Amino acid sequence: MCLNIFRTFKSYFGCNITFVPKESALVGIGGCIGSVARYQINEWIPSLLGTFIVNVLGCIAIGFLMYESIYFGAFSRNSRLFLGAGLIGSFTTFSAFATQTIEAGLFYGIIFIAANILCGLMGVFIGRQIILRGRRSWNI
Amino acid sequence: MCLNIFRTFKSYFGCNITFVPKESALVGIGGCIGSVARYQINEWIPSLLGTFIVNVLGCIAIGFLMYESIYFGAFSRNSRLFLGAGLIGSFTTFSAFATQTIEAGLFYGIIFIAANILCGLMGVFIGRQIILRGRRSWNI
Repeated sequence: MCLNIFRTFKSYFGCNITFVPKESALVGIGGCIGSVARYQINEWIPSLLGTFIVNVLGCIAIGFLMYESIYFGAFSRNSRLFLGAGLIGSFTTFSAFATQTIEAGLFYGIIFIAANILCGLMGVFIGRQIILRGRRSWNI
Repeated sequence: MCLNIFRTFKSYFGCNITFVPKESALVGIGGCIGSVARYQINEWIPSLLGTFIVNVLGCIAIGFLMYESIYFGAFSRNSRLFLGAGLIGSFTTFSAFATQTIEAGLFYGIIFIAANILCGLMGVFIGRQIILRGRRSWNI
């Protein structure tokens, strides 16, 4: 009964908002692990470099997961929710990226933005390459 | 004893990595809430617009928190860890931003990057404005 109330309800805006407790729990547990991992890396390597490393590593991981679902599809929807929306989504961050850009000033800020964007996008392609190489070596 | 082992240990790389269970728990709980909130907003408003809204809202919140600590300092270190590194850090995301940029193609990808960066940085300044207005109206 309580679950049914939660599952789908009509909002004040007239939109159907779906809430699936199991999916949200998977995202939440993944998000918990991802945020603690990010925090620990930022404690170890503080400031701009820490956020840069976290964002690029996360982009490699999400690229791997994204192209895995295209070329293999071995992970279930729940695993992808846990890893993608939860763990990797929380591991990477845009808010620290924005505040550190402002704190860095104009010159270093522009370099920081360019480095994050370019290496982040490259990271997604590195994730794709890992998948494509695996595909070739396993002859799938 | 167990806590002491955890607290500070010499890594294989010769660096001191500090692990404070209470701080990590605060970040983790905040990260859990933030990731579920982001997931729910992305379910409601999928694709580029959802990620854009999430990142800009997160930037306003982190700007508020950052300048609050500069001008007021009412939040404790633990509250800022819970809200900043945990909740807001996990609410915003760089990994979905990167994959959606690639999926959007060159034209929309560039617009998406520019919109996120410009509105994200503006969001931090909106957070600052909220703090400054509060300061003025309370005569602090």
